[in-house]
Amino acid sequence: MAEKFIMIGENIHCIAPSIKKAMDERDPGPILERAEKQLKAGATYLDLNIGPARKGSKGLMAWGIKILQERFDNVPIALDTADISEIEDGIKVYNRSKGKPIVNSADAGERKKYVDVAAANDAIVFALCSKEGVPGDNSEREQYCQELLEHGMGLGMEPTDMWFDPLFVVIKGMQDKQKDVLNFIRYLSEQGLNSTGGLSNVSNGMPKHVRPIVNSFMIAMSIGAGLTSAIVNPCEVQLNTAIRTADVIMDAVLFADSFLDDVEEACGKK
Amino acid sequence: MAEKFIMIGENIHCIAPSIKKAMDERDPGPILERAEKQLKAGATYLDLNIGPARKGSKGLMAWGIKILQERFDNVPIALDTADISEIEDGIKVYNRSKGKPIVNSADAGERKKYVDVAAANDAIVFALCSKEGVPGDNSEREQYCQELLEHGMGLGMEPTDMWFDPLFVVIKGMQDKQKDVLNFIRYLSEQGLNSTGGLSNVSNGMPKHVRPIVNSFMIAMSIGAGLTSAIVNPCEVQLNTAIRTADVIMDAVLFADSFLDDVEEACGKK
Repeated sequence: MAEKFIMIGENIHCIAPSIKKAMDERDPGPILERAEKQLKAGATYLDLNIGPARKGSKGLMAWGIKILQERFDNVPIALDTADISEIEDGIKVYNRSKGKPIVNSADAGERKKYVDVAAANDAIVFALCSKEGVPGDNSEREQYCQELLEHGMGLGMEPTDMWFDPLFVVIKGMQDKQKDVLNFIRYLSEQGLNSTGGLSNVSNGMPKHVRPIVNSFMIAMSIGAGLTSAIVNPCEVQLNTAIRTADVIMDAVLFADSFLDDVEEACGKK
Repeated sequence: MAEKFIMIGENIHCIAPSIKKAMDERDPGPILERAEKQLKAGATYLDLNIGPARKGSKGLMAWGIKILQERFDNVPIALDTADISEIEDGIKVYNRSKGKPIVNSADAGERKKYVDVAAANDAIVFALCSKEGVPGDNSEREQYCQELLEHGMGLGMEPTDMWFDPLFVVIKGMQDKQKDVLNFIRYLSEQGLNSTGGLSNVSNGMPKHVRPIVNSFMIAMSIGAGLTSAIVNPCEVQLNTAIRTADVIMDAVLFADSFLDDVEEACGKK
């Protein structure tokens, strides 16, 4: 059978006021609650986004990792921040018995040094195939991918520990670029490389009831093209349904008549 | 922009008791009613399936074509029967102002002569990439595709008038073969060939509420892989939603915030 698609839960993010407050006050409650919901919905990894360096944020990543891993059996985590020292400090306390830490994220420009941090710590790294802003076309994506790959491999990384992000782009305004993204995912897949991305970007600016529908078909088409993981809200019923169904079609999960019966419950919707 | 995905409405089928009766009695009512519903839901072609030759079926295809084209502005039709003389007689009365007739269907075995009928009449032909039963793998599919292509081109057909059918196979029992189908669609697309198929096969035997969900993600993944048409029930809301959304993602239809607002109404569901 094929590899199961990997959901990286995006809901522990300091952009949410309740999470920012919990992080500032080092209050585990709201963070653990969101973690539990995402794991119940099938997330493999949790993204822990503490934002950029700011007053009082020193030690925040390590604290978050400790409370999450203690409570949820060493759940694997994507360490998501623009503050590289927080990633380094976080990895020091990270327990890798359930999976390597993920450094989120490198690119081919200013953030190339995130590859160095991953390489120095035997971590996975999300590698954006971009330098400054959105790549103009797939030859740019390929170039940045190759640059990052050579850099990482030069530092001793396994290619499969670099999860390349094609950069999902918004449909409203960049509708003609969606096929590029799908084609680039296919290119990565054909190279045997892992991939990831922030999928919900595609539906930015769309009406609220349309977004989950568009996200769900986009992720199914992306998985069909070979996407191996994504940073998503696993508690969104339509998206969760799409991923389960795509996993069946790609022969990564054995079909059973009941395979969708618990999807609403798993997503906390009943 | 890309070409819009072509829906071929499958609902005028003699397997439905009301349609069989209407065909036997040459009663246009039930047939025109199903045609209207499918066209409202966005079908481009209507499949007219009169079944095999049987008592009283002589002239049935021509009759069906006439009533449909008279009522619906020369709607293009797929002529679907194992009775090849009915196809030939049907084409004689067919008005091609809105599109060539489709001969449904040839294969690389016993039904290769359907290609001859299409070639002799400047028609499109559905060409199943199979000989006897379901192809075992994609090298078989490729071989049959090439055989059919050479045969048709030898008779003067345009390659794009041969719409190749990869044979969608049932997930329950052939789960490990779904990726083959998607890969073969991609192969056809890369060759610049058109494609089609009876998509709902994939969910045969699944619970009733699961089928439209599986069909909808399978068609989105197939369109992502390059499928250009399918024989479907266009009045199925989830499938219709999938096709509309995939058309947006593939840049075949311009996105508008309202693009799904009328989907239930178009499918006759409210």
